[in-house]
Amino acid sequence: MSNCFSGRIGIIGAGALGGFYGARLARAGHDVHFLMRSDYETVRENGLRVNSIDGDFSIRAEVYSSAGELGPCDLVIIGLKTTQNHALAELLAPVVGPRTLVLTLQNGLGNEEQIAEALHQQGHRGAEERILGGIAFICSNRMAPGVINHTAHGWIRLAKFRGSAEERTHAIAELFRSAGIECEVFDSLARIRWEKLVWNIPFNGLGVAAEEAHSAAVLDDDALHATARGLMEETIAAARADGVEIDPELTDRMIASTYNMGDYKSSMQIDFAQGRPLEVETILGEPLRRAQRGGIATPRLEMLYGIVRRRDHLNRLREVAGEILAERGK
Amino acid sequence: MSNCFSGRIGIIGAGALGGFYGARLARAGHDVHFLMRSDYETVRENGLRVNSIDGDFSIRAEVYSSAGELGPCDLVIIGLKTTQNHALAELLAPVVGPRTLVLTLQNGLGNEEQIAEALHQQGHRGAEERILGGIAFICSNRMAPGVINHTAHGWIRLAKFRGSAEERTHAIAELFRSAGIECEVFDSLARIRWEKLVWNIPFNGLGVAAEEAHSAAVLDDDALHATARGLMEETIAAARADGVEIDPELTDRMIASTYNMGDYKSSMQIDFAQGRPLEVETILGEPLRRAQRGGIATPRLEMLYGIVRRRDHLNRLREVAGEILAERGK
Repeated sequence: MSNCFSGRIGIIGAGALGGFYGARLARAGHDVHFLMRSDYETVRENGLRVNSIDGDFSIRAEVYSSAGELGPCDLVIIGLKTTQNHALAELLAPVVGPRTLVLTLQNGLGNEEQIAEALHQQGHRGAEERILGGIAFICSNRMAPGVINHTAHGWIRLAKFRGSAEERTHAIAELFRSAGIECEVFDSLARIRWEKLVWNIPFNGLGVAAEEAHSAAVLDDDALHATARGLMEETIAAARADGVEIDPELTDRMIASTYNMGDYKSSMQIDFAQGRPLEVETILGEPLRRAQRGGIATPRLEMLYGIVRRRDHLNRLREVAGEILAERGK
Repeated sequence: MSNCFSGRIGIIGAGALGGFYGARLARAGHDVHFLMRSDYETVRENGLRVNSIDGDFSIRAEVYSSAGELGPCDLVIIGLKTTQNHALAELLAPVVGPRTLVLTLQNGLGNEEQIAEALHQQGHRGAEERILGGIAFICSNRMAPGVINHTAHGWIRLAKFRGSAEERTHAIAELFRSAGIECEVFDSLARIRWEKLVWNIPFNGLGVAAEEAHSAAVLDDDALHATARGLMEETIAAARADGVEIDPELTDRMIASTYNMGDYKSSMQIDFAQGRPLEVETILGEPLRRAQRGGIATPRLEMLYGIVRRRDHLNRLREVAGEILAERGK
């Protein structure tokens, strides 16, 4: 049994992901502080509500409308959509002190690198040592301001950005466990991130590229099924070029478990349907660039990236056009 | 100078393609007969109108509403969309006699095979010898019943289905030339069909898969541009497995000429935008199956086929749903 982390916890990006975990930690008695934008007023007045398969609950939340007000934390948990990563440096500056740990629960590749780069530029030496990455296996949605629906899972895989797990890594895992969240510690962040991508790349990507293709629609079509397998193999090859050896049998295992998911809609597919920006760079773009740097041919991934990036771009244009028309209609 | 074909000419599928060429042949004094479905009444009363960059004209057309009425022809020209190929056998039975020549101007691969199969089943021995394939390089659209807009090009590449060109092949080329249509005879139908596919597969396919991606949108995006090139290379490899050697430099030449086309929309992209069925099997599916039979890996083509077939399928469902709702609204 490890020690449990204790200290001031700041949640940046308190939506479906950060909001859920922050609320669970707060309910367990930890000192949690939420940075919020659009939900700030609602949550300050009414608290944060979680409708959850594990039991519904509400908390009164310590909430802030700017990173400057939130101020220095001992642990910062980042649940921001990666489409907002351009704001990371500015958000981190006031909350990261000389000993602050930073855990990103964001999707895909390159988030830890961006955090490290921001902290370096802010004068933090050896900041990589204080960065952790987590993969959240969870289905949750922000239903309304201050209301989160949690419909499945919730467990976390955790690792240090650089080097093997150490005592404080385990202390953070223990923190989540103290709030009833399963949390497993790994020695290689790159490995757990790439393994997740073996599923995310085909099923998030094709879910958008092949028009509303939930997982069963991909598996039931011979050409899309073969493409999903091919994308998994390309991802494993790209991971190898990035220094991570993944057992090729993972492909078969993931296909089998995806059959059990029925007509599951990926987060990217849901984001697309709801007109939200897609996490195309961290889920597709960065893996492709690493394959290219490693000299690995990933023709399906390249094509998927091109198609999804274009659909996302056009979706953004439609959103903006809709807002302009709505504004004129007032 | 070859002899010019003369005899009774039947046009099956008298839309943007068959309607245009049939009207030009009729205007030049040839004995042309049109089989029409939805446009039958209009054309019988008002004739066929062609608004053309080569000069507008109208003809009074000999028009029939069933293949049985049309009856035996010396030359049958097929301009049917390949999505209607399931109707081919029934349409050909009454119009093909023991010496009838059949020329298909349809897109993609497998049309001549389907015609040969139909004729064999109808008892025609050695029917392959009387089948020709043509590739029409033309931009034309059916604007309204009996009205065709011809906006660019119009030339035809022609070859026998099996074996080298012979006198009657040249006589059909001369027939088109007598109507002011450039027509070149080739010795290998497979070669001219595959060469056309080197362009059609990437630009028709990505035009639908990458959401309204006209040619410039594909060329201007690094991932889509690389994908288009990759699809061209896969097509050349598939052609080789199908017995056709294509100079790999065709890729560079086609990319260069596509830059000159500006924001050109492919026929498949236009069909998709207008809710019409896509020629997905002859342009993507059959080339993929030939590559697979030849043991050639074409990962991009497989993925493209999967995505476009699915988008086409969903588009059909939307059309049907729209028709049902419109019917209920009456």
